[in-house]
Amino acid sequence: MSQLQEPVPLSSYLWARLRQLGVQSVHGVPGDYNLSLLDNITASGLHWVGNCNELNGGYAADGYARVKGIGAIVTTGGVGEISAINPHAGAFVEQASIVHIVGTPALKLRDVKDFSLHHTLGHGKLDCFSKMFASISAAQVFLYDALQAPDQIDYALKTCWVSSLPVYIEIPSDMALQSVEGARLAQPLDLSYPQNDKATESIVLSQLRGLLRKAERPCILVDMCATRQKIDTEVRQLISKSGLPAFVTPLAQGFLDEGNPMFGGLYAGYGSHAGVQEFVEDSDLIIHLGPLETDVGYASFPNLHLRATILAMLDWCDFTNISVKPCVRLENGVSSIQNDNSPITQDWLWPYIGHWLQPKDILLTDTGTASFGIFDTKLPLGSMLINISLWASIGYSLPSAQGAALAARELNGGQRTILFQGDGSFQLTCQEISTMIKNRLNVFIFIICNNGYTIEREVHKTSETYNDIAPWDHRAFLRAFDPKAQYSRSFRVETKSQLHSLLGDELFSSFDGVQLVEVCMHEFDVPPPLQRLAQVIKASQNQSK
Amino acid sequence: MSQLQEPVPLSSYLWARLRQLGVQSVHGVPGDYNLSLLDNITASGLHWVGNCNELNGGYAADGYARVKGIGAIVTTGGVGEISAINPHAGAFVEQASIVHIVGTPALKLRDVKDFSLHHTLGHGKLDCFSKMFASISAAQVFLYDALQAPDQIDYALKTCWVSSLPVYIEIPSDMALQSVEGARLAQPLDLSYPQNDKATESIVLSQLRGLLRKAERPCILVDMCATRQKIDTEVRQLISKSGLPAFVTPLAQGFLDEGNPMFGGLYAGYGSHAGVQEFVEDSDLIIHLGPLETDVGYASFPNLHLRATILAMLDWCDFTNISVKPCVRLENGVSSIQNDNSPITQDWLWPYIGHWLQPKDILLTDTGTASFGIFDTKLPLGSMLINISLWASIGYSLPSAQGAALAARELNGGQRTILFQGDGSFQLTCQEISTMIKNRLNVFIFIICNNGYTIEREVHKTSETYNDIAPWDHRAFLRAFDPKAQYSRSFRVETKSQLHSLLGDELFSSFDGVQLVEVCMHEFDVPPPLQRLAQVIKASQNQSK
Repeated sequence: MSQLQEPVPLSSYLWARLRQLGVQSVHGVPGDYNLSLLDNITASGLHWVGNCNELNGGYAADGYARVKGIGAIVTTGGVGEISAINPHAGAFVEQASIVHIVGTPALKLRDVKDFSLHHTLGHGKLDCFSKMFASISAAQVFLYDALQAPDQIDYALKTCWVSSLPVYIEIPSDMALQSVEGARLAQPLDLSYPQNDKATESIVLSQLRGLLRKAERPCILVDMCATRQKIDTEVRQLISKSGLPAFVTPLAQGFLDEGNPMFGGLYAGYGSHAGVQEFVEDSDLIIHLGPLETDVGYASFPNLHLRATILAMLDWCDFTNISVKPCVRLENGVSSIQNDNSPITQDWLWPYIGHWLQPKDILLTDTGTASFGIFDTKLPLGSMLINISLWASIGYSLPSAQGAALAARELNGGQRTILFQGDGSFQLTCQEISTMIKNRLNVFIFIICNNGYTIEREVHKTSETYNDIAPWDHRAFLRAFDPKAQYSRSFRVETKSQLHSLLGDELFSSFDGVQLVEVCMHEFDVPPPLQRLAQVIKASQNQSK
Repeated sequence: MSQLQEPVPLSSYLWARLRQLGVQSVHGVPGDYNLSLLDNITASGLHWVGNCNELNGGYAADGYARVKGIGAIVTTGGVGEISAINPHAGAFVEQASIVHIVGTPALKLRDVKDFSLHHTLGHGKLDCFSKMFASISAAQVFLYDALQAPDQIDYALKTCWVSSLPVYIEIPSDMALQSVEGARLAQPLDLSYPQNDKATESIVLSQLRGLLRKAERPCILVDMCATRQKIDTEVRQLISKSGLPAFVTPLAQGFLDEGNPMFGGLYAGYGSHAGVQEFVEDSDLIIHLGPLETDVGYASFPNLHLRATILAMLDWCDFTNISVKPCVRLENGVSSIQNDNSPITQDWLWPYIGHWLQPKDILLTDTGTASFGIFDTKLPLGSMLINISLWASIGYSLPSAQGAALAARELNGGQRTILFQGDGSFQLTCQEISTMIKNRLNVFIFIICNNGYTIEREVHKTSETYNDIAPWDHRAFLRAFDPKAQYSRSFRVETKSQLHSLLGDELFSSFDGVQLVEVCMHEFDVPPPLQRLAQVIKASQNQSK
């Protein structure tokens, strides 16, 4: 074996590379196959979060990645890694850069014949778990050789960063402390993005220029990928340069400055803002930035990359002399704050809450009435909305808020983290409030208390009770994690005036810690956009019966 | 299409078949792809449990299956099913009959091109999730055709029952209410077990007879498979007929009557009961019933089945004139109940708790100090110990206790359900206490409060703090689910005499509901069997450095 210039333990190499990418905290759960990996995590300048379970740790890493560009989770092989398979798949679908580091049984134990390792299928087939991740990972590397490991780590991390997708790194427990070449760390990771095929690019651009000149009602529609691939600045520059009306899909809500006169609103089919569906669907040229499959005029260009194409458009598209039609302005509907003792309703809540939001707020809405209700909230400048509306895994948002709040604290920009979640989805991942308190994070948690899965009551009406949940006292729940009420406060509001008073309270808006608000609403009350969409779904179901 | 004699909805057919196998309750979480499936579950005479999340629902179905022979969980395709992949894999490793029913997107939606369904990878490849279950399912069926569906259901359920392994049934949402032939339900499922190859069987038996005659210190060692394959009676008959000393492995603890003079104790290598390691390892013939791979004298017989072979041994083995050596008797060490104010210690707790146990108790120990501590507990007659020591997924036991307690109530045999769990593993799946209370179950929950993952501190000593957990007030936690304290009580004990008083209280032993006891212990205190095993592990680690 060749002499190492600066030997460092393999795990230290990995931690150092993650630090270089901006990762300051690592999520996960300790387990006997990853303990040797964790031994020098603090010495490497990283903060160990310590989640309650792997599902939650994965969601938290996702929330962290949405705010900081990349996140990491450590699990133990078998039981731990597959408990994180849902967030791993979610990151693949929704495009978040998550580095999933899996500690596995020591290589030396694998040679012992007839040795049944715990956390395995008992038959020595150790790769059955990593195979489950093959279709949902942008890269998978298996660090079985100390000489190759740094190259493998660099490859996986670059792929994770550039693709905005999760990667999987397996480290057997007896590899974690093997020496690798540390001198490489002086050279930063190559994070260059893939380039377009220039011939195709010029064809597409000239086609686009032609379409733009002809179009009478062109517009831009910003979709998911445009907001998840670390090209925020370029996308915003393009929109600004174009001067075209710009709309967002639910997966990109919050990405554009909603105060800008050219912001057109949210397009979500029948769930759209008033006037938006008509505007977008009447448009004769929609520049759709970052749908799941990038296509122009029904032709697909697999060798064009979104980032490179947007850069090229910035350089080469001429937007002067383009027809521009003004669009409807969105306001938070309830402009005069109501102060009455009537119950809180979904149609009132969402426009109302917009008045309380501040610039740069990080908002999270869990799949359910919250993810549709927020359509009707006008978001403040520089705010960020984190949802998982394509993967739509309920329970995502609470741990994700833990990750997002931690990332926000590290960025030190004074951003607040605000979560809106139903009481049904709260029950899936609720214990991560403990991790928020343990890590002294500041999070607002609004729980919509309406006795369960209201969204399912709306899309599939039934007399069955399976959408009911057990009633919880969320305030007692919070107390379990903070017995002396040092780092948290809780509230319950039933009327509009109660919520109004609470939001008007200065301590509430500035408190350091976790604040949980039970917002009581009727179990059949749904936000108007969801109501409109559910009507369409039900109509199509009846049609096909 | 041929005329149906008695058309019933596909879902009703499935529910009726499950009822015939003894399933009275179904675990799971509702989701939009399984709602149509759940619509007639109550009408079919089944109780819908409604778990907090899918991980927990899967564990609960496992606990239910351990007590009643088979259990069922319903999840929604994508997000839901893969959140249950850990318990599904665990059931495969530890051999539990779990029917995993997955509601998926309607077939008619899959034909719509360019339609990106939520809960999918967004690219129309819907089978990527079911493929993750291929290596951990005894059967997978996809109900896409109403005519074939009853055969597929019968095949999957038979396989589940006979193999004691999980199966996977996919039901697209527009298939759930399709009509299928209900007349078939009059004919019970064929649950016949596979037969041995007779020629091989007679070779093995004659070999065994020869070995038995020659042996001077023969014994029986009961292992996992012998306790999980619905052959309890036959295995016990064989042991009784043989008159040989019989031992159990940790995966079979509680299976034998520990009061029987021929019960030899627990064999777990260096973790064994006193005298047991010597007895078993000195034995010149160990009839090892139900290890993961059934082999006799290092020869493997893949065409012999455990059940059939045990039946054959019952018929054909002559145990008269066999050399029988008496074995050491196990007692619950702390014979005089101590009544002092010293802290509770691991070496004291486990033998002590044995005095409080009653015949037929269902005990659960989570992976950690509890799963090793229980080695030193003498179990009462007819008790059942549920652990998951091979798969070793922490957090399993609390939801499993929910499933076991529900199954016990249905059996109506007055069995108590008693859980021992560490405070670290408690945090993974804690919310399922809510499901216990919602379903009005009776469960004793002893939480070993020792600030985290003590077992990991023992096997891998470190100055890092990653094994610490956030301190919880478990009693406040319980209150969240039962605000008026109607169905639950909680306690905290720090000394031996406090625990003694609590266990001596009659109301405690007979209370209807959930009782949670915080048992405070030192974070570096571990049960003696774990200490002995950890020493061996550490010695081998040092050796190979």
